[in-house]
Amino acid sequence: MSEISIDTLKTMLANLDDAKKYQSLRDVMETLPAPDLAAVFEDLPAEKLPVLFRLCPKDLAADVFTELTPETQQKLIDGLTDTELKAVVDELFVDDATDLVEEMPANVVKRILGQADPTTRRMINELLKYPEDSAGGVMTTELMELRPDMTVAQAMEAIRRNGFDKETINNCYVTDDSRRLIGVVSLRALVLAKNTEEPIKDLMDSNVVSVSTTTDQEDVSNLFGKYGFLAIPVVDAENRLVGIVTIDDAISILQDEASEDIAKMNAIGPSDKPYFKQSMWDLYKSRAPWLLFLMISATFSSLVIRGYEDALAAVTVLTAYIPMLTDAGGNAGSQSTSTIIRGMAVGDIQPHDLPRILWRESRVALLCGGTLAVCNFVKLLVFDRIAAPVALVVCLTLICTILLSQIIGGILPVAAEKLHVDPAVMASPLITTIVDTTTLLIYFNIAKMLLHL
Amino acid sequence: MSEISIDTLKTMLANLDDAKKYQSLRDVMETLPAPDLAAVFEDLPAEKLPVLFRLCPKDLAADVFTELTPETQQKLIDGLTDTELKAVVDELFVDDATDLVEEMPANVVKRILGQADPTTRRMINELLKYPEDSAGGVMTTELMELRPDMTVAQAMEAIRRNGFDKETINNCYVTDDSRRLIGVVSLRALVLAKNTEEPIKDLMDSNVVSVSTTTDQEDVSNLFGKYGFLAIPVVDAENRLVGIVTIDDAISILQDEASEDIAKMNAIGPSDKPYFKQSMWDLYKSRAPWLLFLMISATFSSLVIRGYEDALAAVTVLTAYIPMLTDAGGNAGSQSTSTIIRGMAVGDIQPHDLPRILWRESRVALLCGGTLAVCNFVKLLVFDRIAAPVALVVCLTLICTILLSQIIGGILPVAAEKLHVDPAVMASPLITTIVDTTTLLIYFNIAKMLLHL
Repeated sequence: MSEISIDTLKTMLANLDDAKKYQSLRDVMETLPAPDLAAVFEDLPAEKLPVLFRLCPKDLAADVFTELTPETQQKLIDGLTDTELKAVVDELFVDDATDLVEEMPANVVKRILGQADPTTRRMINELLKYPEDSAGGVMTTELMELRPDMTVAQAMEAIRRNGFDKETINNCYVTDDSRRLIGVVSLRALVLAKNTEEPIKDLMDSNVVSVSTTTDQEDVSNLFGKYGFLAIPVVDAENRLVGIVTIDDAISILQDEASEDIAKMNAIGPSDKPYFKQSMWDLYKSRAPWLLFLMISATFSSLVIRGYEDALAAVTVLTAYIPMLTDAGGNAGSQSTSTIIRGMAVGDIQPHDLPRILWRESRVALLCGGTLAVCNFVKLLVFDRIAAPVALVVCLTLICTILLSQIIGGILPVAAEKLHVDPAVMASPLITTIVDTTTLLIYFNIAKMLLHL
Repeated sequence: MSEISIDTLKTMLANLDDAKKYQSLRDVMETLPAPDLAAVFEDLPAEKLPVLFRLCPKDLAADVFTELTPETQQKLIDGLTDTELKAVVDELFVDDATDLVEEMPANVVKRILGQADPTTRRMINELLKYPEDSAGGVMTTELMELRPDMTVAQAMEAIRRNGFDKETINNCYVTDDSRRLIGVVSLRALVLAKNTEEPIKDLMDSNVVSVSTTTDQEDVSNLFGKYGFLAIPVVDAENRLVGIVTIDDAISILQDEASEDIAKMNAIGPSDKPYFKQSMWDLYKSRAPWLLFLMISATFSSLVIRGYEDALAAVTVLTAYIPMLTDAGGNAGSQSTSTIIRGMAVGDIQPHDLPRILWRESRVALLCGGTLAVCNFVKLLVFDRIAAPVALVVCLTLICTILLSQIIGGILPVAAEKLHVDPAVMASPLITTIVDTTTLLIYFNIAKMLLHL
């Protein structure tokens, strides 16, 4: 593993550049993986970008370009001549070129499409039709297609002739005369085949798992995790092969979706930029609206407390346990919600499981609530030395609030999924607010009953 | 995509089994992907397991076996004869066999190792030496190794001869006479090579990214996301090639680690079982201790409130805003913590970035706090109609608590990382408790000062 840090790399490249040692600079860059080189490019001043980029070997240049953030891509494109831009666009895979077109402003898009050759332009326009987060939006059309009646030898010949510009040839897809997908055969199977005259239709696996162009990208990515594929074919409504999604795209999607869920669960509007790439305004925009919304929804808890001011005035010690009770409810609720949300995200839980969810959640809630109540009762009597009836109020509230919180926590994400709202948003932030109000209502009502207030 | 649900599948297979239509049963099973078939096996009664398993075609059987949970694997092994067990173990890849040995009780392990052939047994014992969550623990030793002075034709010949039992041949690794890793060459490059007499050393990529046997599995998996590899070679301290980690393992690791972080962030002890596979006791065990710990640590907030009972009695309306203020602090704190934790998990943020983190977090906290304070001040005066000095107390507390929460939220995960404690545990649950106490202290002290209590 290259143990050199990106900072050291930056300094080294800057020194070589200052000393105009361009040949050494080129030699060093050639030995670096594209993502590391891209990280260095990210922080270059705009005028240095095209200079260093021209020194990159041609095939590395395209890989580095793909790894750059849209902002840096645009700065770089602005510094390139039309001929240089054409060289880059020709080297890009069609799915990466499509992503680029989606991110750039109109005038840059015009320049890019103007430089792309007609076939590439047609493929880009084709891919632009699909929603960005669907299988159609993330797939590439550069795949290796074979026919069922080819022999292994003919297939290998076809791969040698046409494989160069395919995104992957590790899996080849077998289609019939109407381009309908009928099987998949791995390069491994072709290479290891004992009999090179065997027809592909005997060698291929005809139980091929495919997705439709409209399948959500997260569902597609989960299939990779589940089945261990390297690529999944994408078919249209007539089962005609239109593209493939490769595992490198799936891995990024899974990481991004997990980050997005974690952000939402913690009341943050998601951002696809790394932390230090976000501006103050990005950070503010993703955090302030949620904090504001939650603050305003806390009005309900204030209203409840103000409605029971007399009870609180009569037994002032009740106030002391408000944070403990609302936190216990909030923690119990987010335990359930986050479990269900993650289970749905990875495909372990389906919305129709709701009755089973509620049955499990209520039982575990009673167990947890019971344990907490018993421990707390002892603590209140022995350490806090408060009166037994008040301790009883606190502990009964604890049981009820944990039961209710875990039930609400189980229902919310399933309800969200059915209403086509993002379940992750229902986690910690919203459940805390809901549970606060219900906890306080339970607390004061039990107090009024047991303490005769 | 096979649109049939696992439940339908179960019913279908059970019907065929009852009707003793074993040939049809076998035919149906043959068309199913191994993970789907494994899902059906999971819910079979113990006595049915070996019966159906015997009907599986041999190569499918090993794949299905690998996908089963350890509990079901053990039930199944108990029902198999020694000869049948040997057939399964021989078909398993060594890394899967090692996982199996790690999960089974001693008597089953003895049976498994007794049936494995000597080479497999030696490889399993070798792999068992590495910690379970290190690169050594997840790697496989069944990789395709080439020599630099082989020609392309000789390399292809070697692959055809030895490739069958390798976990992947899509990437082949080039080693020198002392087995030191010197390069990587893809099967794609070999197949597409124009000149079959070209030596491998000219075709290979010698800038090969490798990891050491002790590298943490999460760091290895992040490299797949970053560089888009299909496999990463693992080397020992002398740079000798000892194994490879493949991308299908990396995807599961990334998903499991994300699930684990989400669980910890929501005060749940992590479990590697899917929701419905966890027993009541599993669920209780993962939730109750955290709830209990958090309840007990809420003692501090009760103490603070009881310490300021006089102030609260004097201005009773102060009580009404306690939940809103502690929630705002908790939400702001978990926004920061979860952002930093996720950033560290995906490698965007390093512990040495702490000063930059604090500088960003304080500025965004002041912006958020300011916005909330202004909105809240208006709301308190206009809607809640409380006195301006009290409103001022609430709003000043809001600014201070958000600033402090986001700073603490930035420090906690970095401190945890430096102390080798899991940062995810520092997220929502712990930060809520810490922030509750500090918020209340700020609140009552500002109240005492401004309201002259």
